[in-house]
Amino acid sequence: MTTDSDLVSDVLSEYGALSRRALTSYLEQVAERDAVYRIAADYPLRKGRSLRASLCIAAARAFGASVEEAVRSAVSLELLHSAFLVHDDIEDESEERRGGPTLHNLVGVASALNAGDALIMLALRPLLGNRSILGPLVAWQILEEAERMVRESVEGQAMELRWREQSSVSLTESDYLMMILKKTCWYTTLYPTRVGALIGTRGNADLDQFARFGFFLGAAFQIQDDLLNIVGDHDRYGKEIAGDLLEGKRTLLLIHTLRELEPSARGRALDLLRLPRRHKPAAEVAWLGQAMRRVGSIDYASQVAHAFAGAAAHEFSVCFRDAVPGRDRDFVEALSHWVLERR
Amino acid sequence: MTTDSDLVSDVLSEYGALSRRALTSYLEQVAERDAVYRIAADYPLRKGRSLRASLCIAAARAFGASVEEAVRSAVSLELLHSAFLVHDDIEDESEERRGGPTLHNLVGVASALNAGDALIMLALRPLLGNRSILGPLVAWQILEEAERMVRESVEGQAMELRWREQSSVSLTESDYLMMILKKTCWYTTLYPTRVGALIGTRGNADLDQFARFGFFLGAAFQIQDDLLNIVGDHDRYGKEIAGDLLEGKRTLLLIHTLRELEPSARGRALDLLRLPRRHKPAAEVAWLGQAMRRVGSIDYASQVAHAFAGAAAHEFSVCFRDAVPGRDRDFVEALSHWVLERR
Repeated sequence: MTTDSDLVSDVLSEYGALSRRALTSYLEQVAERDAVYRIAADYPLRKGRSLRASLCIAAARAFGASVEEAVRSAVSLELLHSAFLVHDDIEDESEERRGGPTLHNLVGVASALNAGDALIMLALRPLLGNRSILGPLVAWQILEEAERMVRESVEGQAMELRWREQSSVSLTESDYLMMILKKTCWYTTLYPTRVGALIGTRGNADLDQFARFGFFLGAAFQIQDDLLNIVGDHDRYGKEIAGDLLEGKRTLLLIHTLRELEPSARGRALDLLRLPRRHKPAAEVAWLGQAMRRVGSIDYASQVAHAFAGAAAHEFSVCFRDAVPGRDRDFVEALSHWVLERR
Repeated sequence: MTTDSDLVSDVLSEYGALSRRALTSYLEQVAERDAVYRIAADYPLRKGRSLRASLCIAAARAFGASVEEAVRSAVSLELLHSAFLVHDDIEDESEERRGGPTLHNLVGVASALNAGDALIMLALRPLLGNRSILGPLVAWQILEEAERMVRESVEGQAMELRWREQSSVSLTESDYLMMILKKTCWYTTLYPTRVGALIGTRGNADLDQFARFGFFLGAAFQIQDDLLNIVGDHDRYGKEIAGDLLEGKRTLLLIHTLRELEPSARGRALDLLRLPRRHKPAAEVAWLGQAMRRVGSIDYASQVAHAFAGAAAHEFSVCFRDAVPGRDRDFVEALSHWVLERR
């Protein structure tokens, strides 16, 4: 018997490899034009799960499309994802990404920033290429979706930057959820599902239906990611453990901890968070990690992630009710469990 | 009698004001959505000539379009221009822009970088809006042009960054011309003219014809800009004088100076150029500026700019031969003189 988890692994491997081949061939082609594309190719070609590309292809197929019809959009999304990562890593002064040094640590801020711009531009080409395979109307609808998705991502990143710059201390859970809806969910789950549905239905999908599913699934994914950043295994996770604390990221965990800590400890935590990354003493960071556990933030965030995953499973049954039964539909359905199980 | 220079001023004022109104109204609208758009609005709303927007509108009108049909594309271009400036200023560690501090000096690198991304995204909306006014085919052609233009700009910026990072010493004039074709000419002259012609001719323009005109005009413009950076008046120029020398920019002037200097002085100049900006002694920078004059680089670059302006005037008569006679056509024609006269 194939478990849900095996199914997700299998589909991620298959669609991941497939979109990776298309991505690699595209990047090799442009690499001959200018060295900037070899720098830009770094993140997209690092080991990754290709979750977003796979979700886009599976959603398209579940609504009746072929892989060929979806692969350009999947490749474009992986490139945009990498562009966001490159620019975010500069903005967050992050050290590690996908098991290696961040791009600006390898080539300097100037070249990394320009490589991020190159990635945004490279992501547009496959979307323009959609015209010949999906027709002008669907290709145009996907461009509109891409514009919306980039807008949400930029606004989400802006929220998070403001919080950190202003050392915001009075954030609520709903602030956090609004931020991850914009910064994580749009490009991780809403966009791939909506674009997949557009491709599969030849532009006749009711996109609003997919917004709730995408938000719940993406929120479960992001909260689990925040948890892994604190309790994960470095080699599997590919980023520095407790990097979020060093960067002062306002996660659901941290918001819960700040709310639950006794006043003196809360002051100590806020003093730590206000320090620039390089001035945060390792011992204090370790103390805050312990405090998170002590006040139950790990358990709490885990419960919230489970609730969102459950809500996603329910919404799935609404928005995928007309999808073709089979492996692709099963894969999308199984993601609600998988987001919690992944290490 | 109206001189060429009066005509250019008048048209720049009129189309500048017009595209600025459209830009301001768009930016005010999005500003309500998130504070990131107020940061992003900084450069677009600083005093500028709106040369690119005006050229796009004039070219469109010269081929029979209305202002209304061209203004979205003009606004989009001004936004992309600002996006490039914001990101380039971070990459070049520039201090001043359009008479004020650079954006990253005002709000920090992280917020400025994200605001640049916001500007790229904001530039896409008016191009998508073209569909309802120009029809899907012409709107699509303009998107293809935008993709090409951003590609050339990114590649040009990458060339210049490599030269500076590697302290390239053996650059030739043709390296310089290739760099400015990509980095300056595409978005300053080729793209506005080609897009204007596409709008005016309803997609029936032979775009290759405009490439030579745009290159010659843009090259004259950029070389004159390099000259003004050395010999200009700070208040009119709006950037720091000799900022190019501080940044180690490989201009035509500098390439000529390095070629003409006696070996010992050449070594001294190269030593200076290799220093990071903040370690360049002001006295040495002043010496290099004097050396440029002494070996005749100012005169030489001025001659080259004149030669390109003359070539642009010739190409104009080819690619605008079917344009409607009148003020818009005259404006584009007069730009070949104006690029040399501006202070």
